[in-house]
Amino acid sequence: MNAESKTLTLHEDRLFAPDTLQRAIARRLYAQVAHLPIVSPHGHTDPAWFAGNAAFADATELLLVPDHYVFRMLYSQGISLDALGIPRGDGSRAPVDPRAAWRVFAQNFHLFRGTPSSMWLNHVFHDVFGLRVRLDAGSADHYYDCITEALQTPQFRPRTLFERFNIELIATTESPLDPLQHHATIRDSGWGGRVITAYRPDPVVDPEHERFPDALSQFGEITGENVHTWDGYLRAHRQRRAFFASMGATSTDHGHPSAATAELSDAQARKLFDKVVRGRATAMDAELFRAQILTEMAAMSLDDGLVMQIHPGCFRNHNRALFDRYGRDKGADIPLRTEYVHALKPLLDRFGNEPAFKLILFTLDESAYSRELAPLAGHYPSLFLGPAWWFHDAPEGMWRFREQTLASGGFYNTVGFNDDTRAFLSIPARHDVARRVDCAFLAKLVAEHRIDEDEAAEVAVDLAYRLPKRAYRL
Amino acid sequence: MNAESKTLTLHEDRLFAPDTLQRAIARRLYAQVAHLPIVSPHGHTDPAWFAGNAAFADATELLLVPDHYVFRMLYSQGISLDALGIPRGDGSRAPVDPRAAWRVFAQNFHLFRGTPSSMWLNHVFHDVFGLRVRLDAGSADHYYDCITEALQTPQFRPRTLFERFNIELIATTESPLDPLQHHATIRDSGWGGRVITAYRPDPVVDPEHERFPDALSQFGEITGENVHTWDGYLRAHRQRRAFFASMGATSTDHGHPSAATAELSDAQARKLFDKVVRGRATAMDAELFRAQILTEMAAMSLDDGLVMQIHPGCFRNHNRALFDRYGRDKGADIPLRTEYVHALKPLLDRFGNEPAFKLILFTLDESAYSRELAPLAGHYPSLFLGPAWWFHDAPEGMWRFREQTLASGGFYNTVGFNDDTRAFLSIPARHDVARRVDCAFLAKLVAEHRIDEDEAAEVAVDLAYRLPKRAYRL
Amino acid sequence: MNAESKTLTLHEDRLFAPDTLQRAIARRLYAQVAHLPIVSPHGHTDPAWFAGNAAFADATELLLVPDHYVFRMLYSQGISLDALGIPRGDGSRAPVDPRAAWRVFAQNFHLFRGTPSSMWLNHVFHDVFGLRVRLDAGSADHYYDCITEALQTPQFRPRTLFERFNIELIATTESPLDPLQHHATIRDSGWGGRVITAYRPDPVVDPEHERFPDALSQFGEITGENVHTWDGYLRAHRQRRAFFASMGATSTDHGHPSAATAELSDAQARKLFDKVVRGRATAMDAELFRAQILTEMAAMSLDDGLVMQIHPGCFRNHNRALFDRYGRDKGADIPLRTEYVHALKPLLDRFGNEPAFKLILFTLDESAYSRELAPLAGHYPSLFLGPAWWFHDAPEGMWRFREQTLASGGFYNTVGFNDDTRAFLSIPARHDVARRVDCAFLAKLVAEHRIDEDEAAEVAVDLAYRLPKRAYRL
Repeated sequence: MNAESKTLTLHEDRLFAPDTLQRAIARRLYAQVAHLPIVSPHGHTDPAWFAGNAAFADATELLLVPDHYVFRMLYSQGISLDALGIPRGDGSRAPVDPRAAWRVFAQNFHLFRGTPSSMWLNHVFHDVFGLRVRLDAGSADHYYDCITEALQTPQFRPRTLFERFNIELIATTESPLDPLQHHATIRDSGWGGRVITAYRPDPVVDPEHERFPDALSQFGEITGENVHTWDGYLRAHRQRRAFFASMGATSTDHGHPSAATAELSDAQARKLFDKVVRGRATAMDAELFRAQILTEMAAMSLDDGLVMQIHPGCFRNHNRALFDRYGRDKGADIPLRTEYVHALKPLLDRFGNEPAFKLILFTLDESAYSRELAPLAGHYPSLFLGPAWWFHDAPEGMWRFREQTLASGGFYNTVGFNDDTRAFLSIPARHDVARRVDCAFLAKLVAEHRIDEDEAAEVAVDLAYRLPKRAYRL
Repeated sequence: MNAESKTLTLHEDRLFAPDTLQRAIARRLYAQVAHLPIVSPHGHTDPAWFAGNAAFADATELLLVPDHYVFRMLYSQGISLDALGIPRGDGSRAPVDPRAAWRVFAQNFHLFRGTPSSMWLNHVFHDVFGLRVRLDAGSADHYYDCITEALQTPQFRPRTLFERFNIELIATTESPLDPLQHHATIRDSGWGGRVITAYRPDPVVDPEHERFPDALSQFGEITGENVHTWDGYLRAHRQRRAFFASMGATSTDHGHPSAATAELSDAQARKLFDKVVRGRATAMDAELFRAQILTEMAAMSLDDGLVMQIHPGCFRNHNRALFDRYGRDKGADIPLRTEYVHALKPLLDRFGNEPAFKLILFTLDESAYSRELAPLAGHYPSLFLGPAWWFHDAPEGMWRFREQTLASGGFYNTVGFNDDTRAFLSIPARHDVARRVDCAFLAKLVAEHRIDEDEAAEVAVDLAYRLPKRAYRL
Repeated sequence: MNAESKTLTLHEDRLFAPDTLQRAIARRLYAQVAHLPIVSPHGHTDPAWFAGNAAFADATELLLVPDHYVFRMLYSQGISLDALGIPRGDGSRAPVDPRAAWRVFAQNFHLFRGTPSSMWLNHVFHDVFGLRVRLDAGSADHYYDCITEALQTPQFRPRTLFERFNIELIATTESPLDPLQHHATIRDSGWGGRVITAYRPDPVVDPEHERFPDALSQFGEITGENVHTWDGYLRAHRQRRAFFASMGATSTDHGHPSAATAELSDAQARKLFDKVVRGRATAMDAELFRAQILTEMAAMSLDDGLVMQIHPGCFRNHNRALFDRYGRDKGADIPLRTEYVHALKPLLDRFGNEPAFKLILFTLDESAYSRELAPLAGHYPSLFLGPAWWFHDAPEGMWRFREQTLASGGFYNTVGFNDDTRAFLSIPARHDVARRVDCAFLAKLVAEHRIDEDEAAEVAVDLAYRLPKRAYRL
């Protein structure tokens, strides 16, 4: 470790307003929620970790390679993905020493100043690994060694971390084609950690997904249904949803380019499905098909009770050359302007007033918060607002979410926090940031005499713990 | 009253920044405006209240049933409108005891934490009715009794409240078909309260309004014009506008789905009108007709001096089933993305530089504040910006309005506050919130040394009192 | 000077949060950057000033007549451009005494309260001219005399001011038709001030520009190329770009109505160009042509190293009558909603991953900051974000820029400040505001324990000085 490396601290008042009055209130509110168990109803951790409970390999494999939040920023400043050891689409990898990749990361850690990634990573470094110097070129090897050594010890196995993190429940996300064997292994292992799945059917409902034809065939094999007929296809969904529910799932998740829903007649739906399975769907057909599927999924949710989540508005794999070489999920997904009012009407016309139906909406278009989403959620009994998501889960984004949804939606049409992450070690950091931001926001309301502190304390606990359990039927 | 009920207070510094310096400045600025008379140039109170001066019935009828800001939030959490005693479209009502409805409201009052509704209601409870405990399940009956008893006393008659509220002037909003008899009654009564009307012709200018054909016929009867000809139709508007002006109106108001305006040739306008009156207008025709009417209204404003207001961008009655059962104005109106730059050009090309023409623009799409509205108002002499409106009249929304319009529009292209409410008792609360937010905003500018405090004080008084009178020609 | 005129002060802590902790941090950060040289890589000052070094005429000609930020606000309140002495499109001018015009400005200076114009102007009044009373009706003549007299002294010649302002480099903006004689004069003069040009080809690339046909012919004459053929046209660009580079240019600038780019085949491009030069391009053709040109310009940038800037999203000359009478740039440009994700894809598919290509993006649509621009810049190595621009360069706009781009873009995908101004005397004021806002923003991050103060200090210097030099290859 370099003698010039600076001290790494996690200040106990981080994210609270510096004003002494607000800060004191925020501290008191945070004390109510800081140690509540973590409920993580939506995320992308790998259930194999908890099934196999094997040690993570090294610092680079754990913290850098899988985290496209992190390597996208390095890439944006001209660092090649090969230099970081990111695997290519064909499974090959540039021959890069993980320590060398870590050094590149460390040398460029200043790029993350002020970003949520730096906040989460510093939390992991400090609290999970006990590091006490800042990450920079001088401390790169110290970090690499400390982390990699720690990972070989029993205290850093996935299940032990799960318990240490005080996770009450975590949901992963799987495709209908997934046999959920890891979830079965976990269930049968006798371990007490609660790891459930969620039903994410994108590959079998999006005709434009590159794997769609194969995925559809596999969908038929796994279910024994003739999924090339509309009736068989819908039955296959019902069957897999039931199976997912039997493995703990309480929700479905839909990552469409838009929020479009449709209400086709039975004849129209059959005709459209026919085009889709014959591979003759145009871009407009594909959009309409996805739209109709959302309405069909809502109908099934009414029957099986799975809570529906729509995560719309992302242009996936925007960088053509990068996609060709490295494949999906390499930090090149870009949000799109997203319309909800007309888009959701067909679905809401059918199910919007159903007491048993729950739909949680997300957005990457913050201009919709106050204009569309809060007014919709502040009216329809079936609608709830998911938290600030993905590009917007920084403290500023969380603050905008509250400021722009409170007036029309209140606190109680929101559902608490989702960490939505595959970076397992950052889960406590992310929930901590969300809790701190909500407490800071509530502290401002108290300091400005808009609500009383006892009310704020109740809201803080609701947001951190009760609302996610209620919203996701946990 | 339950022994556990908490104290209800209205803190004298509410809505001011907790920072001691800013708060001290805000207090001094607010002291200049706190007791200025209320000028309410745009709203939806019922002139019958001031004409008849009858007692309001009870707490539920006064505060819950007519306020779709309030019951929309309860509905969004699964409480049926029937349980709250909201009338259906056919005039019938579920047999609900008003006290029982009030209890449902009280039990769920926590849903409003942090919303403007809770702020306005608490102000009414505390200042108008003298209540000193918070509303909750335990205090529900105490509230119901206190309020309902008070309403039977002379001090709570509409005219007495009008005077107690220090209202200098209030504008109501009527359709051209309204005979304005209540306004005549008020004028002839010798009572000194100034209650004026505003000309809101939506039902006779929107071919898609469900009452359009009937409204048009009635428009002909009331004016004696052949309103099925373009010339007669325009003459009928001129005649009713003149009548409204004679009853005190200084403004017109237009609640269109978009801000579209048009500049058709005379021949085109006649042809379009012909389609409209024959009931053959397509959705595009209807949009074009509304657009042309805005331009025609502007032309009339230039002649008769009525200030024009456009309130665009709402999808009315979004919830189909609710509309079928309960009718309009049940909390299911949802804002839409709204474009102004192209939409207003036809009208502005004709009248934008006319010194005698005044157009006040509103929006439900906050993304237009800094991008379109402030630049337009900061250039065109005829254009002014109405305040943060409807879904955006919470403190956060008002703050965003100032932050996003100040740079290009300044303070002096805005028009002060509109309460825009049918909740008469909340009018002082709403104006108080607006004054406090403006003072808090100005205090920040002073504390950051961007304007001097004497300038801020002048602006505060301008925003609270002088600008609305100037903008609405009062 | 009127006895009632108030003192004009520039507080040393202006724009810093009033909270004592934040303010102290902001002061320390600002001390690091307050006296750094000014690097102005994008602006619209007139190189003739520095070539000829003649005295400016008077207060009105210097500060009012050329500044459409200023006279647009006066015009919006009903003051005619004639009364301010603004020249008409035909070169004529109403016979207005400049002192009388100045008095109108002074009487209405309250209209600018809280706007960036007032901040910049007060800085100029105080620091450049040493005025110590506020501008108002009473001090109008005092101002006019002080300023006009000062301008006749050697200390107020352009080159002396340039040096006094500590300008390390300033870029002006010229059309390809400009012979750059002033830049040659400056270079040959032996004066040490560094004034470079930038290549802004709008008149020869926009078929809808009113001067396009003439400009194209002139483009041919000046280059000796047959610019009515596609190959000759592209060669002419390459030639002029090289000439501009030889005169110091390091960047090009493109002010298109949208951010559209295109990737036409060679045959399609030739066919489109043919329509354009024959004057047969439709509006859609014109849009496609501009789109294709951006991609061609990017290709040339890859060769000649000029950094590319796109400034999209403005409806120019929105006020028809004003344009007919007074011509361009009279304060009637209005921002438009602007899409980037689809628009830029053709260009990025070709050049987005090129290490040698740099594209700096600007926007007038703030809703794109967090949704589109920061995610794009936080991924593509070639993309950088220009600062809050034009209607958004007030402190609030700069603050929104940082708050909405930090999470996905960080600080290091931004390029520091552009003053983008033709108001030469305001340049120190504008850079000072930008530095103060960045320091205030960083101080908040430090006070909330998100970054350490030593990191913030480094970022502050990067934003004020190092990043613009790196981004613009200076």
